[in-house]
Amino acid sequence: MNTFGRSFRVTTFGESHGPAIGAVVDGCPPGVEILESDIQQFLDRRKPGTSDLVTPRRESDLVEILSGVFEDRTLGTPIGLLIRNESAKSSDYNHLRDVFRPGHADRTFIEKYGIRDHRGGGRSSGRETAGRVAAGAIAAICLKKRGISIAGKILEIHGESDPALFEKEIREAREKGDSVGGIVSITISGCPSGLGDPVFRKLDALLAGALMGIGGVKGIEIGSGFSAPKMFGSEHNDPMSPEGYLSNNAGGILGGISNGQEIIIRLAIKPTPSISIPQNTIDISGNPRSITIGGRHDPCIALRIVPVAEAMAALVILDTLLEQEKFTAWREPGSV
Amino acid sequence: MNTFGRSFRVTTFGESHGPAIGAVVDGCPPGVEILESDIQQFLDRRKPGTSDLVTPRRESDLVEILSGVFEDRTLGTPIGLLIRNESAKSSDYNHLRDVFRPGHADRTFIEKYGIRDHRGGGRSSGRETAGRVAAGAIAAICLKKRGISIAGKILEIHGESDPALFEKEIREAREKGDSVGGIVSITISGCPSGLGDPVFRKLDALLAGALMGIGGVKGIEIGSGFSAPKMFGSEHNDPMSPEGYLSNNAGGILGGISNGQEIIIRLAIKPTPSISIPQNTIDISGNPRSITIGGRHDPCIALRIVPVAEAMAALVILDTLLEQEKFTAWREPGSV
Amino acid sequence: MNTFGRSFRVTTFGESHGPAIGAVVDGCPPGVEILESDIQQFLDRRKPGTSDLVTPRRESDLVEILSGVFEDRTLGTPIGLLIRNESAKSSDYNHLRDVFRPGHADRTFIEKYGIRDHRGGGRSSGRETAGRVAAGAIAAICLKKRGISIAGKILEIHGESDPALFEKEIREAREKGDSVGGIVSITISGCPSGLGDPVFRKLDALLAGALMGIGGVKGIEIGSGFSAPKMFGSEHNDPMSPEGYLSNNAGGILGGISNGQEIIIRLAIKPTPSISIPQNTIDISGNPRSITIGGRHDPCIALRIVPVAEAMAALVILDTLLEQEKFTAWREPGSV
Amino acid sequence: MNTFGRSFRVTTFGESHGPAIGAVVDGCPPGVEILESDIQQFLDRRKPGTSDLVTPRRESDLVEILSGVFEDRTLGTPIGLLIRNESAKSSDYNHLRDVFRPGHADRTFIEKYGIRDHRGGGRSSGRETAGRVAAGAIAAICLKKRGISIAGKILEIHGESDPALFEKEIREAREKGDSVGGIVSITISGCPSGLGDPVFRKLDALLAGALMGIGGVKGIEIGSGFSAPKMFGSEHNDPMSPEGYLSNNAGGILGGISNGQEIIIRLAIKPTPSISIPQNTIDISGNPRSITIGGRHDPCIALRIVPVAEAMAALVILDTLLEQEKFTAWREPGSV
Repeated sequence: MNTFGRSFRVTTFGESHGPAIGAVVDGCPPGVEILESDIQQFLDRRKPGTSDLVTPRRESDLVEILSGVFEDRTLGTPIGLLIRNESAKSSDYNHLRDVFRPGHADRTFIEKYGIRDHRGGGRSSGRETAGRVAAGAIAAICLKKRGISIAGKILEIHGESDPALFEKEIREAREKGDSVGGIVSITISGCPSGLGDPVFRKLDALLAGALMGIGGVKGIEIGSGFSAPKMFGSEHNDPMSPEGYLSNNAGGILGGISNGQEIIIRLAIKPTPSISIPQNTIDISGNPRSITIGGRHDPCIALRIVPVAEAMAALVILDTLLEQEKFTAWREPGSV
Repeated sequence: MNTFGRSFRVTTFGESHGPAIGAVVDGCPPGVEILESDIQQFLDRRKPGTSDLVTPRRESDLVEILSGVFEDRTLGTPIGLLIRNESAKSSDYNHLRDVFRPGHADRTFIEKYGIRDHRGGGRSSGRETAGRVAAGAIAAICLKKRGISIAGKILEIHGESDPALFEKEIREAREKGDSVGGIVSITISGCPSGLGDPVFRKLDALLAGALMGIGGVKGIEIGSGFSAPKMFGSEHNDPMSPEGYLSNNAGGILGGISNGQEIIIRLAIKPTPSISIPQNTIDISGNPRSITIGGRHDPCIALRIVPVAEAMAALVILDTLLEQEKFTAWREPGSV
Repeated sequence: MNTFGRSFRVTTFGESHGPAIGAVVDGCPPGVEILESDIQQFLDRRKPGTSDLVTPRRESDLVEILSGVFEDRTLGTPIGLLIRNESAKSSDYNHLRDVFRPGHADRTFIEKYGIRDHRGGGRSSGRETAGRVAAGAIAAICLKKRGISIAGKILEIHGESDPALFEKEIREAREKGDSVGGIVSITISGCPSGLGDPVFRKLDALLAGALMGIGGVKGIEIGSGFSAPKMFGSEHNDPMSPEGYLSNNAGGILGGISNGQEIIIRLAIKPTPSISIPQNTIDISGNPRSITIGGRHDPCIALRIVPVAEAMAALVILDTLLEQEKFTAWREPGSV
Repeated sequence: MNTFGRSFRVTTFGESHGPAIGAVVDGCPPGVEILESDIQQFLDRRKPGTSDLVTPRRESDLVEILSGVFEDRTLGTPIGLLIRNESAKSSDYNHLRDVFRPGHADRTFIEKYGIRDHRGGGRSSGRETAGRVAAGAIAAICLKKRGISIAGKILEIHGESDPALFEKEIREAREKGDSVGGIVSITISGCPSGLGDPVFRKLDALLAGALMGIGGVKGIEIGSGFSAPKMFGSEHNDPMSPEGYLSNNAGGILGGISNGQEIIIRLAIKPTPSISIPQNTIDISGNPRSITIGGRHDPCIALRIVPVAEAMAALVILDTLLEQEKFTAWREPGSV
């Protein structure tokens, strides 16, 4: 099931070292101006090889719009998005064909499917997220027309919360052949109240599911998060005044429905599993092996998760916005 | 959208003070022995009025199986589950008709729908979860046939992790007319490897979405959770030996797919928003109001969330198990 | 999968001789006035025992609204609908426990599930359609607010198209212990243009799927139907003038999208399979048997399919209407 | 909503004269051998320009597998399929930019979306079906491993049922600048019993919905079809013997579930709407216009619908097969 969303639906495809990756966006409102260059800007923020802190794999990640856009406007039909894989050094992975990397999906993939493309993680590669970012770019462009914006940033790297020290933490880890994790925040501004559902499709549930669906995310907080259990109800409840809410422990969502305040999310990102320090593992026949992972890897995936998390949040918000607008025509003129 | 799951689908219905609540379970495997008394045992763990630490609202929560079971065995057809609302003291809520309780969905409900049943929170009441627990009971019975069990427990109340002091924390809050939150853990044992998908329907993503869909949950951790960002990759990766994994920072899920280890989840639960301490709020016309919430409430909903979280986890695991078994017949005899 | 629809979703449950049948309607717009008595009127048109031409089984088919309606208005939350089975003469069916009735789902049910409720066809009984009619009543009430109406009627009984002779055909068959089929038409008036999708969810595809999902339907025509293959393109194309279309071979749907004309459908209904004439069959062990079906049956189910077909058409039209209204807010003021 | 199927899901994209068309196949069982050349064989049966009876538009319709296949075997991940549009003579369509062709979706498309790609029908073009045929080829290859085959053929052209005269009918129409329709049959052999559901997802309902979703189909019959209403129940019921069913009026489906007999379907296809005889119509501003359609068109689309109908039937059968296999592991060893 590689489709996400109900009204704004994204289907991604592609393995890291196959011919191409991409996405099909279905349910985009018609008449929205979308240029390839708009989508490219979002992809360029995610693409590898842009600094010495991320993997040096060089992929231009050029997106081609295959369908669904005519004379720069969306048709309401599916938007096919194609990104060719260029720098597919498959031979780098020959020695990994029969061995399972710790912290990776290698073994679980085989346990699930009985077969896998071992090159670069195949479908489990972070490269798959380029399709999500391309689709998320379209969602973000639509949301901008409604005054909604989404911004992610790094809050912590390896427990360090002073941004001046983030690079230092990452470099130190990389020099040891090791890796570090981090905490990412996502803030959604301008979101109207009324999005989300009261039960299974609570807005926070959808966001949690969407963001935990990014590889490497181990924890999610909405608003007060893990500090909530330490508070009294009288502290945690956000009082209301005619001017608005007086605090935002809710993180912008009450009872699963947006309340018009900023939506505030934090994500815990694990350290990149690909490290060049030797590790104990097994091969496909169950024999013990020691493994040292060379190749081109990110010492801290948290950096590159930021645009992916923004993209997933954009998909959720636009999807729930469209679901809600379905009923707009039924509302009585006098109702709230 | 009040349906959860793809292969094992649960649709719930019902408001807190309407005629009834319930669920329809669709996609249950045929031939499984299910008695009303089996389901009742699960519901009795959630029902109100069982101790002086939970709401004294008295509901017998008796479940009736309306369909889908014949001579105590499932037919493979939809299982209708009905629970009548008995102790519906609607008059308790008359004074709340036009005022929004802080920390509740009252205001967002009106903003979404333009109309609401104000009595006891209506559809946003924790009472809705009885339908989920009844459906989850059926899932748990099916999972037991596969050797899979799910156990929830309280890890902390109001920051206190010594179980001997949980009652004390709750009583102190209640005496002040206040409330407290807590941390709940869910452990899934006996889960085979191979469940979940590599992209949007990662097993951790499904669990996060399912559990964040329980009212009051503000944070979720899988395995290492928010301690992951503080670790090096060399610490976080779980090494493998022929005897199995040597640690479980992954929390039983790698690349979105179960790895056969215990699945370990922690949930942050906010303090109950219903408190009898006066709070500032507004009414439906936007005028400032002070509100004191009487009635029958739980001083700590974390206690009653435990069986609900178990139920939601059971729904996810059975759903992904059925999705995976679809391909069993296609696997080559010699494959892993 | 007992759920129908995307935006207006109906889940039905229930066996013919179990405790109850019913439906959950999810996605109904909020604020619509719905009374139990409104739904009852639709059910009364379908219910058995109303004339000597239909089964004398006596079921009052009284519907109870369990949820989703407050002070006679929909809340936007799921509407639970319950109909108790009353006249469940299960002993009538004891002799059918191990034998397969020709023309029925008895054998295929066992082949699918390995278990069945043999009493009255269980889930395959026409009785299941009461849940659809109750849900369809709600859809019809919503559609009426948009000026859309749906009317079914009998066009032919056993090849006879003169309505004066319909009763005669049915009585003659019944006297012989036999049964007859018929042709039913459904006409949808007031439907706006723009409903349906250009590819898989063509409006005619959705209607065909919905109506073929009624037991006993063996053929479907939209507009010109099976006369289309005999026509030239120059005859079949409906010319347009500033006043509108000049003919309606399309049957109100072009390229899968409604064109604003009347939508015209015809259904071929097979003769009721339950007949008292002896038939050759086998039992569950594969032994040859002769079977004579007593009990209470309709000599011509086409009569009772009319309200069911109207209900299914109403579900499709409201569903596609809501899907389309999702994009209303995105249309440019000056666009068509 | 451009996705079809539940377990075997196909999403198509693409306009007739845009950069490309294609499909993403999600849910294909892993480990199945699939070559591009296998898929190409199916596409070659559909492609234009192969005889003087079909459109002379020249498209090589070469398919490229973008993902989901590794070393010629499916991975269980999404299979991206790409077909570039080559012979896109867009200038042929300039004069149709603002005028609505009778019998086409031009006007309804604008009424739905407010925007369209007018070139060659855009998304409504028969060209979109190439993506379905490519996906259907994969389904057919999977079905072959289960001994299931699907064969379509022409039964009638313009009312003529003697195959020797089919070409004559088509040529005569083309010489007049006109077009003709036909009747197509689909026969599914080797299908096991037990596929399909008893209510909304009846196998015949799914097939009817899938096949009515092909442009130009105006009617569908399963088994006895429109001759059923003329029969007595005693004639229509298929008796059973220990050797099997003694007739097949059911067309291989009873109560929505396959019964192991051949599944027999007939489709009524309208005459191609593109004709060079002048027709009355209107333009986008509502003014009367006369239109003569030049360009490259099929005088009888029934011919080219055959492989498309086979593909859609294959998608339905594989989808229901996978849905059914989900429960295989739960069946008691001794059950039927």
